[in-house]
Amino acid sequence: MTTLTALYRRPDGGDEALAAFERAYAETHLPLVAATPGLRSLRVQRVVQGLGAPTDLVLVTAMEFDDRAALDAALASDAMRAAGRNLREIAPGLATLLVLEPAEELLPDGWR
Amino acid sequence: MTTLTALYRRPDGGDEALAAFERAYAETHLPLVAATPGLRSLRVQRVVQGLGAPTDLVLVTAMEFDDRAALDAALASDAMRAAGRNLREIAPGLATLLVLEPAEELLPDGWR
Repeated sequence: MTTLTALYRRPDGGDEALAAFERAYAETHLPLVAATPGLRSLRVQRVVQGLGAPTDLVLVTAMEFDDRAALDAALASDAMRAAGRNLREIAPGLATLLVLEPAEELLPDGWR
Repeated sequence: MTTLTALYRRPDGGDEALAAFERAYAETHLPLVAATPGLRSLRVQRVVQGLGAPTDLVLVTAMEFDDRAALDAALASDAMRAAGRNLREIAPGLATLLVLEPAEELLPDGWR
């Protein structure tokens, strides 16, 4: 599996701006993401606390694909291109996008 | 489920320092994490690319617990305290620790 993970920072404007971002994210962004060809799973989590230090992150979204080729095909799709344009509207400069690959060889026996 | 997610930044010192960190992480840190009471799943992923902008993140680790109470009990355990001390040795200042809760209500129908 190859994962595309998006980390979202808190928008300026306090809790009202955050609620507006979450609403736009759910109503306009995630439906585009969900229509992406090859998407195997879609998970959204809210950041409820930074441990040890405060954090400016508010949402973490993970999108799983079979492999890197499937992710690259997805990124080139109409749905994902529209999702990218949408993101620049509803959360300009707030997202960090990471491509992640399993690192199971680092795990102890029994957890691989 | 409540997730404790750790984001690790690249250590100073180039690829050699990164390899040394990964080795210490696999050999000394993850065994302590794996011994944490209440841990339901443990996943380590390597950051292979930042999309749209370069990233200084190199590893993302997700630790799942039944709920926030289970995570809090885990954080107070000997294993997790030892893991915290270990982290301050092998990756001082490199980790961001986030507590995440599901935000399934944001997902489109069919993905919840």
